[in-house]
Amino acid sequence: MDRRNNQWVHPDLEKERRKCTFNTLELTHLLDGGPKKTAERKEREKFFLEDTELRSKVPLEYLSHKEKYEEAVRKSCLIFKKVQQLQNEGKGGMDNFREILGGQLGSAILGDGNPLTLHYVMFIPTIMGQGTFEQQAEWVQRAWQCDIIGTYAQTELGHGTFIRGLETTAIYDSKTEEFVLNSPTLTSYKWWPGGLGHSANYAVVVAQLYTNGKCHGIHPFIVQLRDDETHQPLPGIKIGEIGCKLGMNSTNNGYLGFDNIRIPRTSLLMKNNKVLPDGTYVSSPSSKLTYGTMIFVRVVLVQDAATYLKKTSTIATRYSAVRRQCQIKPEDPETQILDYVTQQYKLFPNIATAFAFQFSANWLWNVYNDVSSQLETGNLDNLPELHATSCVLKAVSTADAAFGVETCRLACGGHGYMTASNLPSTYGLVTAMCTYEGENTVLLLQSARFLIKMWQNKKNLSHLPTVKYLQNALHKKLPFQKSVTWIIAVLQKVSASKIELSNNNINKRIQNGQSPEDAWNNTSIELVEAADLHGRTFIVQTFHESVESLKVSPQLKTVLQQLVELYAVYHALKLVGPLLRFADVNAQEIELLQSWLEELLKVLRPNAVGLVDSFDICDEVLSSALGSYDGNVYERLFQAAQQSPLNAEPVNKSFELYLKPFMKSQL
Amino acid sequence: MDRRNNQWVHPDLEKERRKCTFNTLELTHLLDGGPKKTAERKEREKFFLEDTELRSKVPLEYLSHKEKYEEAVRKSCLIFKKVQQLQNEGKGGMDNFREILGGQLGSAILGDGNPLTLHYVMFIPTIMGQGTFEQQAEWVQRAWQCDIIGTYAQTELGHGTFIRGLETTAIYDSKTEEFVLNSPTLTSYKWWPGGLGHSANYAVVVAQLYTNGKCHGIHPFIVQLRDDETHQPLPGIKIGEIGCKLGMNSTNNGYLGFDNIRIPRTSLLMKNNKVLPDGTYVSSPSSKLTYGTMIFVRVVLVQDAATYLKKTSTIATRYSAVRRQCQIKPEDPETQILDYVTQQYKLFPNIATAFAFQFSANWLWNVYNDVSSQLETGNLDNLPELHATSCVLKAVSTADAAFGVETCRLACGGHGYMTASNLPSTYGLVTAMCTYEGENTVLLLQSARFLIKMWQNKKNLSHLPTVKYLQNALHKKLPFQKSVTWIIAVLQKVSASKIELSNNNINKRIQNGQSPEDAWNNTSIELVEAADLHGRTFIVQTFHESVESLKVSPQLKTVLQQLVELYAVYHALKLVGPLLRFADVNAQEIELLQSWLEELLKVLRPNAVGLVDSFDICDEVLSSALGSYDGNVYERLFQAAQQSPLNAEPVNKSFELYLKPFMKSQL
Repeated sequence: MDRRNNQWVHPDLEKERRKCTFNTLELTHLLDGGPKKTAERKEREKFFLEDTELRSKVPLEYLSHKEKYEEAVRKSCLIFKKVQQLQNEGKGGMDNFREILGGQLGSAILGDGNPLTLHYVMFIPTIMGQGTFEQQAEWVQRAWQCDIIGTYAQTELGHGTFIRGLETTAIYDSKTEEFVLNSPTLTSYKWWPGGLGHSANYAVVVAQLYTNGKCHGIHPFIVQLRDDETHQPLPGIKIGEIGCKLGMNSTNNGYLGFDNIRIPRTSLLMKNNKVLPDGTYVSSPSSKLTYGTMIFVRVVLVQDAATYLKKTSTIATRYSAVRRQCQIKPEDPETQILDYVTQQYKLFPNIATAFAFQFSANWLWNVYNDVSSQLETGNLDNLPELHATSCVLKAVSTADAAFGVETCRLACGGHGYMTASNLPSTYGLVTAMCTYEGENTVLLLQSARFLIKMWQNKKNLSHLPTVKYLQNALHKKLPFQKSVTWIIAVLQKVSASKIELSNNNINKRIQNGQSPEDAWNNTSIELVEAADLHGRTFIVQTFHESVESLKVSPQLKTVLQQLVELYAVYHALKLVGPLLRFADVNAQEIELLQSWLEELLKVLRPNAVGLVDSFDICDEVLSSALGSYDGNVYERLFQAAQQSPLNAEPVNKSFELYLKPFMKSQL
Repeated sequence: MDRRNNQWVHPDLEKERRKCTFNTLELTHLLDGGPKKTAERKEREKFFLEDTELRSKVPLEYLSHKEKYEEAVRKSCLIFKKVQQLQNEGKGGMDNFREILGGQLGSAILGDGNPLTLHYVMFIPTIMGQGTFEQQAEWVQRAWQCDIIGTYAQTELGHGTFIRGLETTAIYDSKTEEFVLNSPTLTSYKWWPGGLGHSANYAVVVAQLYTNGKCHGIHPFIVQLRDDETHQPLPGIKIGEIGCKLGMNSTNNGYLGFDNIRIPRTSLLMKNNKVLPDGTYVSSPSSKLTYGTMIFVRVVLVQDAATYLKKTSTIATRYSAVRRQCQIKPEDPETQILDYVTQQYKLFPNIATAFAFQFSANWLWNVYNDVSSQLETGNLDNLPELHATSCVLKAVSTADAAFGVETCRLACGGHGYMTASNLPSTYGLVTAMCTYEGENTVLLLQSARFLIKMWQNKKNLSHLPTVKYLQNALHKKLPFQKSVTWIIAVLQKVSASKIELSNNNINKRIQNGQSPEDAWNNTSIELVEAADLHGRTFIVQTFHESVESLKVSPQLKTVLQQLVELYAVYHALKLVGPLLRFADVNAQEIELLQSWLEELLKVLRPNAVGLVDSFDICDEVLSSALGSYDGNVYERLFQAAQQSPLNAEPVNKSFELYLKPFMKSQL
């Protein structure tokens, strides 16, 4: 997909590229994980993007909702075939799948979601993770070769966050050795699962398990939903799609109700908990193990947050190099909008944030793997810290990514509002991440609960890398230094102070007679802020330490260090209140930070386009008239407009039908 | 449209309504401007909303882009007919038009923009404002009775903010007494005007006027675009729509290029500037008068910002009263999410902000009328202040409204992501306001320019109500008081300090050898912050003074004062950095502010539903499954899903076409 050779490039972008002080290819390799990984990624992109069958004749946004779905099924089947081809060639790792099915590549091909993704991403992994060997033998092969297509049905109309409150019932009938599934209320209807509407014919369904009149809580069951041959919903299955959404309109999110659906006892996935034929419930002690998947998904989301920011900062930065508007001085030509300091202030921190999140995702991934190995040996010691860190990183990274994507969109002015910029649909996808896989406020409060507990035990934290700073952060004297390590120490002091303050406020409320639960709720605004501060502090530190440990050319190192500084100073200035309040920073030092920020924007200015070029996102994946490598913005916007079916005829039929009769009726 | 009688209402909402401490009808009347205005509004709503012809068979989101447009033209013609009926009954004031064509009522009927709005809102007013009496006689009657349909074509592909840079040319040919219009470049194509694509047959076109080889800058011309009978584009007119957008997809935004289009000399709107038959250009001195329209539009936008917040806070507050999730205490039933303090913190400040913006819009409207009267008498003294205030109010109110709408949407979790909540499309409309009619950063910098000038002249500001505080704000000692007047004084000190600091930094840069223009650009981050601070300070003050001067019942006064306090404290806490830095507020006082905030959330909690009820937005205008008066959330979500055409058949054709062949091919 490299179209960079022998191609016309906008002179403003050529000029920018000549100014770049480092080797963009070196940075691309670093971000991909080495030249081999870069080559593999490009090969994978080529394999999918050069397949003309995977292109749509008309851009999706012009189709009806139904047509969008039909086009998505067409492409999804083709993609799955190609995935199977990769499997057969031994290139079918889960990483590849994710990039193809849910990542930027899949998003570039499908545009607005894949109705079959959950089959590979949730259905098969759940059976593998929670099924017995017998169940795996029965189901995984059939699922793997797509003889059946599954989804994962957990959330209900009335319950998302609080999964203990799910209402779907699975009542064991020992006479027939079956479970009977029911949706006792409207709110118990399953609601949201991708592909559930009209695509999948099987699902893992999460329901409250009852045996012998006793509820044992939620458990996963494999349930057939539609006839293998006709795809008709089975009797008693009430199923459909939930309707249009802000984004992901090809995902075919569905609803599902059960009316006395009988499934065999062996439909319960029984790796952890069993029901014996006579209805005896046998529970497993290792329920903490299911945390693993949740944490894995959050690693992926932090990575995705970085990827979305890379994409939109590429679009907005290239456009800002080409777009000229107004004059700084009356005698000058119109200014590249990238030269306005306010524009730099909107874009460059988002470039830095993309790096910060990628390095944080790398950290989380490594720790996740370490802790997973420990879990295998029965050691759960590091799980709470990992869980809390994954919560706060998911919340901070998705919130900042959504805000950053929107900042990039708004920085492109009116043209950023056009679908052809690909910025609106990117926002639709990135903002969804703030809600799914743990709503952000809920996650911050979970993380805060861990932090308060650690604060109350702060003498024993030296073995916990993310919170050990709590032990002595408060007592540090921190005279101003123009360095990232100073900012990190200040942020740690601020973060520890806020945790201490929240803890004190909870205690005060309890002393005043509130229950611990009410005291917690009444302190929750500050608890959310404390967790957020802790998360940001951790990201600044991780970004800094990751860059310092890199073995790269001095030219690249310098630029990456500038990005670390920008990220650190930018956030310090966003947190002036806490800095002054908790860390004895004074007003004059804030002025020094402000000057430092302005210096950094200036030194990064010549490398702005080089940095986004190094993300190496090909034009097909960017899918943006504003962001293409050649900067041919206006021609592409104009060409995109020509694709509107409304422009296929000079006079729309509504003129004869409505407008002309109306206009003539007035004479 | 009042469906509140004899209707089932969710018990949680009934309970909330019983708790309300004030008369919601009194507040509704206050917001409408009196009982008579409330009655008129309701009559107008009834006149449009009870017309079944104005309803769509299928919700718009399921249609193709082309079908959406056709349905919009059908409805627009019906709406225009009804508007003419109102005119004939003497009810056709411009205020009514705006509400019907561009406001919430129009938005409820059309869903995603009206292709004919600019005819009434820009085309006719421009002819009336900038045409001679002869031109008005020629055009206004034809336009008024919709014999012709017009639009307003100013922005181009390459120019939005910088209108002096527009490239379309109108070169006078004295031989034929015609102007020749051309689009010399691709970037000179008109781009964005609503209704331009396929709806309007005339336009006011803004172009660079040349006579006798000399450019006289941009001027407005009336140009015919399409044949009166066939609607075919006239020869030399290159026209179409610009394609899909984040929102307003029924607006039919268009592009327009000219290839040697000849129009008569009298097509130039000549109220202010004339071209005589021989090509002599006669300029008028009163070009400042055109500021008036721009300012009027900004009054409307501040009002709209309030309206959007009323709508989304109604939806999110009612939903939060009905939605239950998790338990605060293990033994309790699931909690109404409105009882989580973090949820109150998301919603209540937005309710307060809706009021703050409405009172600010009222202030702006009154001053606009005063200054307009002064302009008639040639007195321009108060224009710069009004202009600067309209800039900053537009920027702050649209940015906060967009953020507030999105906060409300996210506060509704997954269901807020659904189109049926009406929150996604509302965001699409409200965020557009940040860009159009003056991009927000550009407007804040314009306002900052005024503020810096005032600072440099600060001895002579006593006649300027919005900036006179600059004279002595810095020197005030402000010992803490738990009062809004204290917060206002502190914010004024902070705002003045930031303006002073920005001014000092500009001067330092100039002393260090930078040109004034570069010094301005390099200080622009702080200048934007200064203007933003000034704007917020002004809104807090206006909100406070407006409420204090109201003659209402004590019960209502108390609640409105609590909202003023909440708005003031909320913003003070968002500005802890500046407060500590510039106003000698100390850390302990910040804790007092935080407690005050938490108290206010608690006292407002029982009135939350009452407050949004008093906005009195009928269900048809809310158009939200989550926000209806009866709180019947889950049934409405389920019913909305049933309207998806995909749910009309149990098996979609894509199964036989793509999915089955794929699944079977694996066996």
